[in-house]
Amino acid sequence: MFAMNEIGGLGQSIADGLCGDITKDLVAAIVEEAGRFASERIAPHNRKGDEVGARLEGDRVISPPGWKSIYQTWMKAGWNSLSCDPEWGGQGLPLLLQVACTEIWNSASMAFALGPMLTAGAIEAIAAHGSPALKQQYLEKLVSGEWMGTMNLTEPNAGSDLSTTRSSAKQAGDGSYRIKGQKIFITYGEHDLTDNIVHLVLARIAGAPAGTRGISLFLVPKILPDGTRNDVRCGGIEHKLGIHASPTCTMIFGDGEGAVGWLVGEENRGLNCMFTMMNNARLGMGLQGVAIAERAFQQALAYARERRQGYSNGSVDAVPIIQHQDVKRMLLAMKSKIHASRAICYFTAASLDRARVETNGETRSRAAETASLLIPVAKAYGSDVGCEVASLGVQVHGGMGFIEETGAAQHMRDARIAPIYEGTNGIQAIDLVTRKLPVSGAAAVRCLIEDMSSIAEELVTSGHSDLVATGIGLREANANFTSATDFVLNAVARNARQDALAGATPYLALFGHTLGLALLSRMALAAHRQILSGTDNPTKNGRIVLARFFADQVACQAPGLAQAVLRPSTITDHAETALYC
Amino acid sequence: MFAMNEIGGLGQSIADGLCGDITKDLVAAIVEEAGRFASERIAPHNRKGDEVGARLEGDRVISPPGWKSIYQTWMKAGWNSLSCDPEWGGQGLPLLLQVACTEIWNSASMAFALGPMLTAGAIEAIAAHGSPALKQQYLEKLVSGEWMGTMNLTEPNAGSDLSTTRSSAKQAGDGSYRIKGQKIFITYGEHDLTDNIVHLVLARIAGAPAGTRGISLFLVPKILPDGTRNDVRCGGIEHKLGIHASPTCTMIFGDGEGAVGWLVGEENRGLNCMFTMMNNARLGMGLQGVAIAERAFQQALAYARERRQGYSNGSVDAVPIIQHQDVKRMLLAMKSKIHASRAICYFTAASLDRARVETNGETRSRAAETASLLIPVAKAYGSDVGCEVASLGVQVHGGMGFIEETGAAQHMRDARIAPIYEGTNGIQAIDLVTRKLPVSGAAAVRCLIEDMSSIAEELVTSGHSDLVATGIGLREANANFTSATDFVLNAVARNARQDALAGATPYLALFGHTLGLALLSRMALAAHRQILSGTDNPTKNGRIVLARFFADQVACQAPGLAQAVLRPSTITDHAETALYC
Repeated sequence: MFAMNEIGGLGQSIADGLCGDITKDLVAAIVEEAGRFASERIAPHNRKGDEVGARLEGDRVISPPGWKSIYQTWMKAGWNSLSCDPEWGGQGLPLLLQVACTEIWNSASMAFALGPMLTAGAIEAIAAHGSPALKQQYLEKLVSGEWMGTMNLTEPNAGSDLSTTRSSAKQAGDGSYRIKGQKIFITYGEHDLTDNIVHLVLARIAGAPAGTRGISLFLVPKILPDGTRNDVRCGGIEHKLGIHASPTCTMIFGDGEGAVGWLVGEENRGLNCMFTMMNNARLGMGLQGVAIAERAFQQALAYARERRQGYSNGSVDAVPIIQHQDVKRMLLAMKSKIHASRAICYFTAASLDRARVETNGETRSRAAETASLLIPVAKAYGSDVGCEVASLGVQVHGGMGFIEETGAAQHMRDARIAPIYEGTNGIQAIDLVTRKLPVSGAAAVRCLIEDMSSIAEELVTSGHSDLVATGIGLREANANFTSATDFVLNAVARNARQDALAGATPYLALFGHTLGLALLSRMALAAHRQILSGTDNPTKNGRIVLARFFADQVACQAPGLAQAVLRPSTITDHAETALYC
Repeated sequence: MFAMNEIGGLGQSIADGLCGDITKDLVAAIVEEAGRFASERIAPHNRKGDEVGARLEGDRVISPPGWKSIYQTWMKAGWNSLSCDPEWGGQGLPLLLQVACTEIWNSASMAFALGPMLTAGAIEAIAAHGSPALKQQYLEKLVSGEWMGTMNLTEPNAGSDLSTTRSSAKQAGDGSYRIKGQKIFITYGEHDLTDNIVHLVLARIAGAPAGTRGISLFLVPKILPDGTRNDVRCGGIEHKLGIHASPTCTMIFGDGEGAVGWLVGEENRGLNCMFTMMNNARLGMGLQGVAIAERAFQQALAYARERRQGYSNGSVDAVPIIQHQDVKRMLLAMKSKIHASRAICYFTAASLDRARVETNGETRSRAAETASLLIPVAKAYGSDVGCEVASLGVQVHGGMGFIEETGAAQHMRDARIAPIYEGTNGIQAIDLVTRKLPVSGAAAVRCLIEDMSSIAEELVTSGHSDLVATGIGLREANANFTSATDFVLNAVARNARQDALAGATPYLALFGHTLGLALLSRMALAAHRQILSGTDNPTKNGRIVLARFFADQVACQAPGLAQAVLRPSTITDHAETALYC
């Protein structure tokens, strides 16, 4: 709630009348209830879901025991429709709240939460681009969660690069198409949680131009409106490192006459339609990282308080390992990275909310640009934090961490997919430096740099020693971020794209560290104000410490990362020599 | 071979007469043959070993299919005894060569190679501390590999801290003891690869003082000299994240009258005996990281050359992904970290060799101190590199990396144990800053800093632009390493241990980056000399690029790491406030 208020600006949005008639108390109650549902109903099944996994029997996918009933209970409680349009039965709540709940579901079980995240993407694409008839036919049941949705993009030879998509679509003469092709890595492509599954499928209409400009998007339901089975089936499921309870399917469209599908959006504009829904999906993958990290942290913290080993300051008995400096370091690294990446995700979600509902046109488009800039950062930084923190969670457990029964290892396995899917983190970094950053003369990033600079000055002049130290750290990080930004923008402008691309990954990390520190600082300043105004409570001072820890121990990597961005030559000019020596 | 010569000083050692009558050609032939055996006989079974794993039937552990025959062939080819003492049938070859082969076996299969590594530790402990009778009885068969050895340290309440060891030993009156207790996480505690297994077990003799000074070491064979079964059995095996083919056993000593065991070394000096063998074992765990990283790199490189996706520089067809800057970055990061950590391990091994065979007393003790200083760095840095590089290997594969059949994920799972066992990497960092660093007035680290400074000057004055840039990087890294070293030594000296402990982990990483860069630089300088002297070959220039990449992109983290060491206050003073906020 603190991050939703201080970073997401929830109070301000409510005051600005952007959130309808909800109140802070209502939001708090919803988040609280989501936490209860997740802890009590979903989380206990996470390990079993991992052990048993989704199984294929013929072309049917069987969920782990209990999975279907959890989904049905969850869906009937209305959790699927929080931020959806009331026109289709949604509750019209802010995306910011949706995002907080998404984190909670993913902490409870990433494999479980993934299905509804895909459904949300399908809803978004159909709502934005579908014909009135398609909306009428499908949106209500997708919004309620009675049916689930999927995204069918990848083919064996078309992954990060969709231009080589081969699946084909032929007009059937009745307004529908017949789709043929094979898709791989389709999340929840087939399952037994719902009676129908609504596939969104990229395919090429006969005669379409080659490349990305000849790809169209189709809606292909598993069960046709007349109740018959469509010509689409699951051809296999993958044996994966993690998220075992989430079936990753090979989907076969058109074994026979072709699967019946309807065009979504215009012909040959399928990628554009997909990118609409990908924005939120990418933010979702960042949140998955935050979510897994939070669960890994809670588990590691509990273990570190319980497990006694070794002595500290001349203690007679063995002390809980949380008293050891190196364990404290690991736990603080986990927590500060979680809070930083969560803040980035909430900030992005709040910008998306403003871009959707803000009435002032200029404010709206500025919010949209900020959101668009931040999405690759939220996705890549959040998912990287997920992996790092889950791995630290294993480490805190020592030998027990390597034993599957402990559960820490599952978090690490589950978390590892988030930097890969919905565009690898390398693709996010490329998107950031070549597409997002230069938009409108780099106005969004310049504005961000200015805001961060103001925060640094506020810290430095606060008179509180920890805040001052944090401010000096933020100043230095922001200066490094500014040089790196200039370098990247300059490289793109003078058509030396390779120089920008070679440093894209450290640039994104630098972006994340700097923005993460700025947002942790905003929370620390808010905490400080609350302490000063006497609305102190014992947890507030911790937020000041957390920001300073992040400045001293994490964002101190800024100079090194900036240097990495500024020195691309070994990568651009001589990589082959070194790789084959 | 290049690293063995330029970093391990193989040629010099041979010239100094420290290696008996071996030649460089013989060493090269042995390494070549190890590579062939590993690639052809062991590596193909690695994935099957992971899938099937070791199984428990009653109290018998069944190895994966084919495992026993591979071990027997490997052992009969003499690979177990390379660096062992000829007195017991060993081949008396340098540890440096053994270490190169250890890397190769671990690249082929970490789960396979782990067994012989434990045997080597047992051989070392018995050779150093065993009675003549025990040596006579056990060493020959352990050296040949006909029997294998284990280390039984951990108990449920005695992990990183062995002072609470509860297993007990009682004199039997005939010179033997009866051992009772339960040990957990015992690698290869039970298996079907050999007829006998020689356990080394920590236990407390009745009446011994409490704490670490009351622990003794015992040799407890599975099969007693009279051919009967000893009172020791496997009570269970763990279900682990990785190294599935390596059985991790709970061992029950003394279900009945007590397991028959013999004291190794003096009473109550068991931990000292264990630490003797742990030095090499810890170096081995660092090598495991290097080994897994090397395999992950080879696989990722091959995939990146094969997999076509996306366009580069206006190409008409999709290009192999190795042509994309971000993929090149990942591959260069993998390779340069492997070469840096391998060099650290070889440097450590060469110091251990010198400490063993050097005739000059002063040189010998200096080598011993250097080795002792470097072992925690080799272990922690190498095993961390293993995890990082294996994770990058997954990333290079994109979606395929998350699918178990690809094999990249197994490397990541297998690698994850190395930062945990044989003393977690946190314990290594503590050992480094509180015990190893201050020895003899910090002479070893001062000497290293001076050597690295000379290397930097040689680079800077070389007249070769890449070497000059690398030299500037090394200078900066070394300056940061020096400040951090001073800070840590000062904290230990003024009894502010908490300040040193809080920064121990970033200090160790800084140590690894700086030394890694210095050793890569030495190889780059050697390559440069070879190019200048006309013994050029096309691979040599790559070593210069690799060192520069490491300076520009990896060791550039030195200032940030030094700062993290110098600012421990949030950890030492305020961690709880932040962890519970």
